[in-house]
Amino acid sequence: MNDAEDIPLLPPESGEVGLVEPHDFVHPASFTCESGQVLPGFTLRYETYGRLNATRDNAVVICHALSGDHHCAGIHALTDPKPGWWNNFIGPGKAVDTNRFFVLCVNVLGGCQGSSGPSSLDPRTGRPFGLTFPFVTIRDMVRAQKLLCDHLGLASLQAVIGGSMGGMQVLQWGLEYPAFVRRLIPMATTARESAQAIAFNEVGRQAIMQDPDWNHGDYPRGGGPRVGLAVARMMAHITYLSDASMDLKFGRRRKAAANNPAYTFDVQFEVESYLRHQGESFINRFDANSYLYITRALDHFDLTAAYGSLEQAFAAVEAETLSVAFASDWLFPPEQNREIVLALLRAGKRASYAELATNLGHDSFLLESEELYALVRSFLGSPSSP
Amino acid sequence: MNDAEDIPLLPPESGEVGLVEPHDFVHPASFTCESGQVLPGFTLRYETYGRLNATRDNAVVICHALSGDHHCAGIHALTDPKPGWWNNFIGPGKAVDTNRFFVLCVNVLGGCQGSSGPSSLDPRTGRPFGLTFPFVTIRDMVRAQKLLCDHLGLASLQAVIGGSMGGMQVLQWGLEYPAFVRRLIPMATTARESAQAIAFNEVGRQAIMQDPDWNHGDYPRGGGPRVGLAVARMMAHITYLSDASMDLKFGRRRKAAANNPAYTFDVQFEVESYLRHQGESFINRFDANSYLYITRALDHFDLTAAYGSLEQAFAAVEAETLSVAFASDWLFPPEQNREIVLALLRAGKRASYAELATNLGHDSFLLESEELYALVRSFLGSPSSP
Repeated sequence: MNDAEDIPLLPPESGEVGLVEPHDFVHPASFTCESGQVLPGFTLRYETYGRLNATRDNAVVICHALSGDHHCAGIHALTDPKPGWWNNFIGPGKAVDTNRFFVLCVNVLGGCQGSSGPSSLDPRTGRPFGLTFPFVTIRDMVRAQKLLCDHLGLASLQAVIGGSMGGMQVLQWGLEYPAFVRRLIPMATTARESAQAIAFNEVGRQAIMQDPDWNHGDYPRGGGPRVGLAVARMMAHITYLSDASMDLKFGRRRKAAANNPAYTFDVQFEVESYLRHQGESFINRFDANSYLYITRALDHFDLTAAYGSLEQAFAAVEAETLSVAFASDWLFPPEQNREIVLALLRAGKRASYAELATNLGHDSFLLESEELYALVRSFLGSPSSP
Repeated sequence: MNDAEDIPLLPPESGEVGLVEPHDFVHPASFTCESGQVLPGFTLRYETYGRLNATRDNAVVICHALSGDHHCAGIHALTDPKPGWWNNFIGPGKAVDTNRFFVLCVNVLGGCQGSSGPSSLDPRTGRPFGLTFPFVTIRDMVRAQKLLCDHLGLASLQAVIGGSMGGMQVLQWGLEYPAFVRRLIPMATTARESAQAIAFNEVGRQAIMQDPDWNHGDYPRGGGPRVGLAVARMMAHITYLSDASMDLKFGRRRKAAANNPAYTFDVQFEVESYLRHQGESFINRFDANSYLYITRALDHFDLTAAYGSLEQAFAAVEAETLSVAFASDWLFPPEQNREIVLALLRAGKRASYAELATNLGHDSFLLESEELYALVRSFLGSPSSP
């Protein structure tokens, strides 16, 4: 692997992270997952932006959501049509300022964008692990990230930031490695996956597992249950938006060739075309077994059950927390985010809560928002800064 | 067909409709659908409860939702495990009082519970119509019901009542046959299917149509895309509940055999087991092509577009309207129901709006609610009664 310091950057004043490249961290030793199942070793793919300071304590870890990856800012080539998934948020002078912070983002364990997961080749067989890959939990993802932080020689983290499943990792970071983390910014998340969220995950899994091409998880790399995965993604995508945002974005607009109430089951409405496109592009970049593993990790996430109560879960936390919720998020609604802060406060921790009045649904945390930027910038510049 | 008067009833004081049986109305003449496509004739399966009075003007039409049918009250046999789908609402002395009203409920055109639909045999080929069945709209469903009302010799309707897709039919009844209908009770519905609702319908259709057993709609009766239909139903079922009701009903409870955080993709949580059961029981009673046709009818429903504006749509309405919304219904949320009443009022019609503070989601209209019963009872007993 390359050292983080090798990454070429455009000049800081450009406002963009610029050209970046992924790195691989190979952990050669065996890793026992929370399930008790053992990985003989693993790889994590990651990117870093900005420079690690001399005291090695200016790092910020960005945690990605279900379908995200390690490429959260910058571009891989000058011809890249779009930058990393949180490029609006991370860069020189941006909310997460790479002139100041050394930003690290890691593809989760169990993922399919370069980190070890069910689509990785099992060295013992030369074929994808499939369902023989150990079950992973949010805690496993975080423990693996910590091994990478240690490998990079990080002394401590200025912050861990993430939305949705990323927010779960943020919480787990704070309670698992309290002395290591100064600030937590969980967004649009929950301390406990709800029945409704489990239900949506289960329908997605059923769509995948009932697809004959799933074949009990045994399919060649790049193959697999494309239809089932597309259906799962289409459905999940609805939960990332809101009624209002879909109305704004698509309403009942019809595709150009279908101006009359055409009587067909082909695409008629723009929203249908959009969803089909989401499904189709997803199957070209995501592995169906990873989708099963990661949604199961979400389902299992329940800090209340794992630690007896949410206050007990947070008892060890030393970091200061800023929890950000979005009014129109119905997947991880405001009350589930508020609950996190209330428990932290009851446990005697420093925590604040912000609810942004966006109408863009769960995905709001990914979208441009001067309000969000200002909140995060101010929180990262608060008295506990270096 | 039998005449409605033939139906055996348990004594009125029992509080139950008792034993009922379905009837078939065969319309032998051709019927031109809104699409311009022509049905050579059609059958509607229906049930009636209570007695038609001498002036033939005490009828109430009940309209069913997407997965409903004509059997809305009473039982078909003394051994029936459960009664019709709205038995709590309809019966002697109940909110819709069969001691007073002659209640009629019809399986919609395009359905699969006895009325003509894509699973009906095409007399020309002896095989199911499949995709050669004409596209139907909410208006087609209502026009077919009116032909049955005429056949039964009904002079006018005391009320038309329905929730969800049933509510759409209620609105269409009011503006299509204004002089025929005295009262409208649309519940948990909309005058215009939203982008989000279209999106959920589309994912369900994709699950069905991408199932190889769908075979472009050409499959034997009782066969077809069972996997796709089950996935569609599981997903749709989530939209009928609410986050709060699922939390209440299932929370994160695990199935008995899975007390530990078992690492498996089999059923672990009760909510998963519930959804799988919903999917499995649905495929034994519903036809996948009907699911496509009826969801498309929902998508097309847009009174604003059809009549220029909602006020214009309601311009001809003579009935008095009671619109009932449920606070936790996120499929057809309160504002979409309120919009109906506001447009009726702007059009100079008599209309009132009630929002019930249930937390049970869209399906609230089907559930026991003394508050709902009282509202409906009072509305049906208002000054415009016979």
